[in-house]
Amino acid sequence: MFFASDNSGPVHGAIMDALAQANQGYAMAYGADAIMDNVRDQIRTAFEAPEAAVFLVATGTAANSLALASHCQPYETVFCSPVSHIHEDECNAPEFYTGGAKLTLVGHSDKMTPEDLRSAVAKEETRGVHGPQRGPVSITQVTERGTIYSLDELKALTTVAKEFDLPIHLDGARFANALVVLGCTPAEMTWKAGIDVVSFGGTKNGCMGVEAVILFDPKKAWEFELRRKRGAHLFSKHRYLSAQMNAYLNDDLWLTSAKQANANCARLIKGLRAIDGVSFVHEPQANIIFCAFPRSAHQRLHDAGAQYHVWSGSLEGENPDELLQARLVCDWSINAADIDRFVALVKG
Amino acid sequence: MFFASDNSGPVHGAIMDALAQANQGYAMAYGADAIMDNVRDQIRTAFEAPEAAVFLVATGTAANSLALASHCQPYETVFCSPVSHIHEDECNAPEFYTGGAKLTLVGHSDKMTPEDLRSAVAKEETRGVHGPQRGPVSITQVTERGTIYSLDELKALTTVAKEFDLPIHLDGARFANALVVLGCTPAEMTWKAGIDVVSFGGTKNGCMGVEAVILFDPKKAWEFELRRKRGAHLFSKHRYLSAQMNAYLNDDLWLTSAKQANANCARLIKGLRAIDGVSFVHEPQANIIFCAFPRSAHQRLHDAGAQYHVWSGSLEGENPDELLQARLVCDWSINAADIDRFVALVKG
Amino acid sequence: MFFASDNSGPVHGAIMDALAQANQGYAMAYGADAIMDNVRDQIRTAFEAPEAAVFLVATGTAANSLALASHCQPYETVFCSPVSHIHEDECNAPEFYTGGAKLTLVGHSDKMTPEDLRSAVAKEETRGVHGPQRGPVSITQVTERGTIYSLDELKALTTVAKEFDLPIHLDGARFANALVVLGCTPAEMTWKAGIDVVSFGGTKNGCMGVEAVILFDPKKAWEFELRRKRGAHLFSKHRYLSAQMNAYLNDDLWLTSAKQANANCARLIKGLRAIDGVSFVHEPQANIIFCAFPRSAHQRLHDAGAQYHVWSGSLEGENPDELLQARLVCDWSINAADIDRFVALVKG
Amino acid sequence: MFFASDNSGPVHGAIMDALAQANQGYAMAYGADAIMDNVRDQIRTAFEAPEAAVFLVATGTAANSLALASHCQPYETVFCSPVSHIHEDECNAPEFYTGGAKLTLVGHSDKMTPEDLRSAVAKEETRGVHGPQRGPVSITQVTERGTIYSLDELKALTTVAKEFDLPIHLDGARFANALVVLGCTPAEMTWKAGIDVVSFGGTKNGCMGVEAVILFDPKKAWEFELRRKRGAHLFSKHRYLSAQMNAYLNDDLWLTSAKQANANCARLIKGLRAIDGVSFVHEPQANIIFCAFPRSAHQRLHDAGAQYHVWSGSLEGENPDELLQARLVCDWSINAADIDRFVALVKG
Repeated sequence: MFFASDNSGPVHGAIMDALAQANQGYAMAYGADAIMDNVRDQIRTAFEAPEAAVFLVATGTAANSLALASHCQPYETVFCSPVSHIHEDECNAPEFYTGGAKLTLVGHSDKMTPEDLRSAVAKEETRGVHGPQRGPVSITQVTERGTIYSLDELKALTTVAKEFDLPIHLDGARFANALVVLGCTPAEMTWKAGIDVVSFGGTKNGCMGVEAVILFDPKKAWEFELRRKRGAHLFSKHRYLSAQMNAYLNDDLWLTSAKQANANCARLIKGLRAIDGVSFVHEPQANIIFCAFPRSAHQRLHDAGAQYHVWSGSLEGENPDELLQARLVCDWSINAADIDRFVALVKG
Repeated sequence: MFFASDNSGPVHGAIMDALAQANQGYAMAYGADAIMDNVRDQIRTAFEAPEAAVFLVATGTAANSLALASHCQPYETVFCSPVSHIHEDECNAPEFYTGGAKLTLVGHSDKMTPEDLRSAVAKEETRGVHGPQRGPVSITQVTERGTIYSLDELKALTTVAKEFDLPIHLDGARFANALVVLGCTPAEMTWKAGIDVVSFGGTKNGCMGVEAVILFDPKKAWEFELRRKRGAHLFSKHRYLSAQMNAYLNDDLWLTSAKQANANCARLIKGLRAIDGVSFVHEPQANIIFCAFPRSAHQRLHDAGAQYHVWSGSLEGENPDELLQARLVCDWSINAADIDRFVALVKG
Repeated sequence: MFFASDNSGPVHGAIMDALAQANQGYAMAYGADAIMDNVRDQIRTAFEAPEAAVFLVATGTAANSLALASHCQPYETVFCSPVSHIHEDECNAPEFYTGGAKLTLVGHSDKMTPEDLRSAVAKEETRGVHGPQRGPVSITQVTERGTIYSLDELKALTTVAKEFDLPIHLDGARFANALVVLGCTPAEMTWKAGIDVVSFGGTKNGCMGVEAVILFDPKKAWEFELRRKRGAHLFSKHRYLSAQMNAYLNDDLWLTSAKQANANCARLIKGLRAIDGVSFVHEPQANIIFCAFPRSAHQRLHDAGAQYHVWSGSLEGENPDELLQARLVCDWSINAADIDRFVALVKG
Repeated sequence: MFFASDNSGPVHGAIMDALAQANQGYAMAYGADAIMDNVRDQIRTAFEAPEAAVFLVATGTAANSLALASHCQPYETVFCSPVSHIHEDECNAPEFYTGGAKLTLVGHSDKMTPEDLRSAVAKEETRGVHGPQRGPVSITQVTERGTIYSLDELKALTTVAKEFDLPIHLDGARFANALVVLGCTPAEMTWKAGIDVVSFGGTKNGCMGVEAVILFDPKKAWEFELRRKRGAHLFSKHRYLSAQMNAYLNDDLWLTSAKQANANCARLIKGLRAIDGVSFVHEPQANIIFCAFPRSAHQRLHDAGAQYHVWSGSLEGENPDELLQARLVCDWSINAADIDRFVALVKG
């Protein structure tokens, strides 16, 4: 019963096969391998972006930090949600990679609203050389609370950003999970909605460790390459990053896998909704949920070895009825039996 | 005929097997996986260093930059060879990770001498607050020119460094290739010789992409972890780094593989030595060699599709007899037939 | 009628005299001048801190950034008020000097409360290597809204910080203005209240451009010196910084000047309080005030050439009765006639 | 007898007068003062550069570091002499301000030659993404060894740089001292010779602490302003920087003062040349000289309280005849009697 994260499950068999397949003979190092040509083509086709520059790195934090650094001067500020991964979970990597840019927190929840964004951006207007200058807007899709921006919501944000000529980054660590919910095309969720650069996640959705950064305008491609190398994120045996991403894109594995993860989570949600006293902190939309149930249920889960984050409160405590929040994540690999067992344990 | 680098060959089968083996069920993320416990134990045992802190990253540049950053203030200077990887091949990553420390080039060749080092270190003494302060010494073993420091040479360098209380880093991208030549223990080539922190390479010697950083004094372990995360080098699915390094250490694969690479290179060297007009720029000791032979031979190799770096001069040129240098690297996987064919082509 | 800032008035005559006095013959450069010895002695005596390390720089941003950088690792976060100078008015200088540390905003107003601070500090506890680590707490006295922490309020904040072993910085750009209001000793407002390092302002209180950084524990003195030089803030002709600070401390000029500035502001406050429809946004305590009055009054001031910041709203607008906020700052040099004329213009 | 540096003498009376003159009433802060308008006009006129952007800072290291940072990406390298101030005397400030760029040392002496520069620049060509990219060339005039590039020598260097599209910085800490020797116009020694950005020194030539940065192409002006603020080098009471620079430019004070310094040094040189056993390490051209004379003479000087740097060797030592080098600097203020006394002491 592993609901702690979508980075704890196994790698998809098709990706393991692709790694084995790639492991033949010699290949050019540092991204000049032939498989990378396929990756580039597949991403350009999937995103209807024939000019896009595409790069691979091994961690989501690298993808985000390098994407931001390529679009942000050190005297600027990045606008993002206070619960964004770049703010809360990257140990100052964005500050490091941008050379000390600031992160300005927009609003007070998972999703930024256009009003919040406009207000935050406008505020920076008034300080001239004294305050940081306006830099990129970073949007997380799926958000860190499991919610999803609709296409209209995305466009409303990018419209504000574009008014001020700000570049827009999408942290798509769970890009596919959002896409299959929205039922739109990759282009619609990105450049057609005004996004300039995407961290396109693979690791959380069945890969071993690979993320693509897609720059729809290739003019910063060479700068990105240099920043990647300088950040020590250029792989010598790059073909093994390429092979993962290639297999991920082949036969829509990325979509199939995301659908499976979302379906697994839907099963979990359905089970939990049926239980009296379970409530959802954020309306579940993808494969991460936040829900509250009594300490006694948490203790049963804990005793049974279930792995997940107790998000608010502590397992230790006197009152068995006190509601504690759980953060539960389903990846593609979780099996129905584990889900059902988890639900049964909550029910008690 | 692929002699361009030891990062172009395939991953060793035992390591691919270990990845498949690791791909079962769930595992704690971010380095808390059980395989990592084995890795730590194996390295501590191999290095006779029960207190050592051990961390994995995916690239050699990350290993070097993080190792240096953990031992260098931004107002200090790193002492290194002018042909060191950290100076020539990391696109300012050490400067980036240290927050802008300088690299002071010691001597004029692949190996630093104690005299050169003392002279470079002493020079920094005279400028008070105006010059950078003395920071770590970084030694590369195998050097970037394929030569190897003897244990006495290593000790002579670390003795100078320790006189000035400077920490000492070993860039061991080809650690195993040197070790099997020296025929000493890992402890003898590191902490017993005065080394404080090692980049212990795996990628060039049969792994997919993994390097260990070993800190013999664990007091900077937590700082290292934070710098690794901030550098975006902490893998969520860390077990796949662990599995590689674990298999690499199992059954002395790392030593076997290095011996094979060196033996392959020895066959190449023997073949080349027998040819009139082939000379070696540096005395070959491990699995990288630099040798000079006529342009006409280079052209034959080129026409036959041989892959390697023409290190000085250009294939294009009128004089077929002009000597051009080649940099040739053998990994464990190169087969005898390719080596012999290469030699035959040089011979003409 | 210049109420825009306390950095727009002239330099005090005694300081100009000291500069002329210092301008004799030769002096050791880079802080080794004899006047600096006096400065160090005077500050140590004034602060009852015989071991303190004392350094001079020319700008408040340099003082703050270097003080913080000496007490903050790049993977840590500084805790400060959302309206602090280091957050709003230094164009990412603290981020730059710390190598990319984050600023965590505590509470929602000028003054941090111990509860806000504890809550912000505690929150960072939960993310392990993923979030930034807890770093220094920075307190501004006088705050950017013109209010003053009482000694008890200071101690309450430093008590929280010390529970977590965090170093504490005081941004004392208007140190003297606060001190004379509290009527305490410099020691009481600093190290006796738990402060570790102070930016001790001179520029806003009659100097030309000089701030002292006082480290009560001298163990980071050499690091500070190196960071100052590396930041390009070490003056060659340092005696002219020393001379300013020395004159500032002589005969309690710093206190006299601050009392005069506060008295000037008190006259302004008294005048404004007597006017119907003028309200104070923050309770005035020192020499900066924020008050609201009708647009029509602002327009009269503007037409008469009064210089100050319209803090909220815009001079342009239809409704003459709409209340717009003004930020008004008095330095020691403002004359009574200008103050009275300003008040009269507000009155209309 | 103060020959240690041109930063140890007094400030010129005309500059002190200008500070007093500027100390009237209120002035806009942060560079918006009226005197700065004069400064800008005077510099644009003097340099025949009506579009140039002009900024003031208080230290030469700030001028150099900010000038370089505005023309150098963090993944690039600056080309400079191994004895340049930016390399030897700024404690990694250029590395800090550029975000970790490297300094590549060109040649082995005070002056770079076009051949050395071409060779250093060309070398960087071969490493693709692995090595740092080519960045600005920084030329020091007067060099740190007291020599001066002729206009032809300058042009030969900038011609190489421009072939590779590299920006060119002139560290003119002693700009005026060189200009009066060459007898050319400021334009001829800068933009007409291919220079893009100049650190125009004031501090060493009679000012208290002010340097101008002149960007002949103003397109980076706003970036420069932001970097200056972020570096904590924007003065609030900026008028006192403006006043210094304005007085420095008025009535050709900068040229008069440099001529006087050079003349003072010429007197010293003449005296030393007449002494048997005194030799010059570099051919003297401006106001810094390096000469060798016996230890016994150094000891006489030392006993008489002469201040200067013993550049090679040590005062302590047995052999009174051993030649030790001295570095001697004359500013405008040194009087003839001190010079003659110094010479007499060398003579013995």
